[in-house]
Amino acid sequence: MVHNFNSGPSVLPKEVFEEASRAILDFNGTGLSILEIGHRTSLFQGVLDEAINTARELMKLDAEHEILFLHGGASTQFFQIPMNLLADKGMAAYLDCGTWGKKAIKEAKLYGQVEVVASSKDRNYCYIPKGYAIPAGATYFHYTTNNTIEGTQMHSIPETSVPLVADMSSDILSREMDFNKFALIYAGAQKNMGAAGVNMVIVRKDMLGKTGRPLPTMMDYQEHIANGSLLNTPPVFAVYVCMLTLRWLKQQGGVGAIEKINEKKAALLYDTLDSLPIFRPTVDKEDRSLMNVVWVMDEPELEKEFLAVCKENGMVGIKGHRSVGGFRASLYNALHMESVELLTELMKEFALKKA
Amino acid sequence: MVHNFNSGPSVLPKEVFEEASRAILDFNGTGLSILEIGHRTSLFQGVLDEAINTARELMKLDAEHEILFLHGGASTQFFQIPMNLLADKGMAAYLDCGTWGKKAIKEAKLYGQVEVVASSKDRNYCYIPKGYAIPAGATYFHYTTNNTIEGTQMHSIPETSVPLVADMSSDILSREMDFNKFALIYAGAQKNMGAAGVNMVIVRKDMLGKTGRPLPTMMDYQEHIANGSLLNTPPVFAVYVCMLTLRWLKQQGGVGAIEKINEKKAALLYDTLDSLPIFRPTVDKEDRSLMNVVWVMDEPELEKEFLAVCKENGMVGIKGHRSVGGFRASLYNALHMESVELLTELMKEFALKKA
Repeated sequence: MVHNFNSGPSVLPKEVFEEASRAILDFNGTGLSILEIGHRTSLFQGVLDEAINTARELMKLDAEHEILFLHGGASTQFFQIPMNLLADKGMAAYLDCGTWGKKAIKEAKLYGQVEVVASSKDRNYCYIPKGYAIPAGATYFHYTTNNTIEGTQMHSIPETSVPLVADMSSDILSREMDFNKFALIYAGAQKNMGAAGVNMVIVRKDMLGKTGRPLPTMMDYQEHIANGSLLNTPPVFAVYVCMLTLRWLKQQGGVGAIEKINEKKAALLYDTLDSLPIFRPTVDKEDRSLMNVVWVMDEPELEKEFLAVCKENGMVGIKGHRSVGGFRASLYNALHMESVELLTELMKEFALKKA
Repeated sequence: MVHNFNSGPSVLPKEVFEEASRAILDFNGTGLSILEIGHRTSLFQGVLDEAINTARELMKLDAEHEILFLHGGASTQFFQIPMNLLADKGMAAYLDCGTWGKKAIKEAKLYGQVEVVASSKDRNYCYIPKGYAIPAGATYFHYTTNNTIEGTQMHSIPETSVPLVADMSSDILSREMDFNKFALIYAGAQKNMGAAGVNMVIVRKDMLGKTGRPLPTMMDYQEHIANGSLLNTPPVFAVYVCMLTLRWLKQQGGVGAIEKINEKKAALLYDTLDSLPIFRPTVDKEDRSLMNVVWVMDEPELEKEFLAVCKENGMVGIKGHRSVGGFRASLYNALHMESVELLTELMKEFALKKA
């Protein structure tokens, strides 16, 4: 048995794999592979509609918010967002709280003025900055809800009159939030939502068309809205896998139900880490991510040894990102509690052996 | 049995569907789905390397040409190419020979001056313009090698000292060409090369870094080259399907071998069309596409009737594009001769019945 702790692309529900595998041979009894159906057929329109409607239902989105499935990953959105939203002479506020936010800041500077309201770079992004002010004149305030690499997560939505723009790539659909509070939400699919190769972008329509900047057609959210995410050939299979994953989440009881399980998984792992001094979580307690749990050990030799134990037990993707080192266990929606239980058992055994 | 004449996404080899279906449950015996493997693992690097190396081999590309697999479809390249290649004060020459070229022209105008050297718009793009001059001062000359919608194809490479940029989305890998003559080649994968959701871009390195224009990181070919198509999470599965399709093509004997079969398929269909006055091919003979065969009938009632016959016989995707009407049969690499044989039989029977 494999326990997949990958940070993304990452584990998806077994039911999704099974259905997707079947659809590659025969999609819904059509005799055609999902890979060879036309994107302007009722077959694919049904897939796209179900993906959009299920996302809308699961996130309780109001009618002012449009849901788009676009080519590219979140990295594409780093520039597409300011390109669409930020006028040459405008200013956007950004929170510098991790690797991805930092990259988003770099791209935004190509399109307007960027004000970094706070940063946690001083301690290698191991906490979420607090007590900062968001300038009222900002076109939008951008932040990353969950930092996949550093293992931090923002547990509340900032109170501000400035429109909120959030990169939710690594925690979308993992917990209840008032998603309607956001002017724009984006997420690469390859964590909680599907396979790599598609972005979900949720945008409040009143944010668009205000910069006066001419846009390439494929980069223009308004064009995608007008064409219902079918401006060009979409990444058909990636959208299909999103639809299956969203359908699965709905069958599990939705976001609130999965959140409870996610909380239990994270609590078990953090409690174990906190109880065993041989392991040292790197993130400040109040800012710990429920999705990506990061820890180190004090000696490189011990890390090597414990990594070997994990591998022997079928664990995949548990090595930490090179910028942090140590370990990272990603506990996305589709990861079973059993995998976390096994990991914590191994930790206890290992700590006992080394005591 | 289904005969898939879709224009794209379109039929792929059965072996590709079978292997992809298996890999979604278990990729190469790893116990992991291809959808959940990390993109920075040796597992995926092997896939990407094989895709690139096989494409290089099949197209006999020299070392000056880099092969990239990028997010988005060819429509993304419509602006990404001038963004990378065309300076603000530069001029690019374009051939207006179909729906896609027209769209490419529109996007290029955002970045520099565009000179349309010739157009076949006067007759609804049913031929390829000839006898035009390409201005020597152009940064590049852009054309579409095969027009998917209108069913025309350019059967030779223009002689010019201006660097050639070609959209080969619908005929790449279908015929032998001296691909090294091109400065940049791009193609959405979803016809001869794989599933929707990835672009192949082949670029001669000396074309890059000359505009002085700051580029968004994700749009910068040089960044993608420096990162070996792993600048961000790539569309893993779409790249994998490309790799399988390229591997299949190599097993068939390569581009030259498939070209012979493609010629036979197209000859059978065009000969049949030419022999039956009830069907009327829309494209000038010398410019007919071997990939997309377009014809109409003189009465809408007859078209309806023949379309019904096709459908009864398991034919999919044979209705013409709304801009041309009538019929379109796409004869991509993976379409079997049997499908063309059946179609031509049905044509003969139908013509006989109506005679």
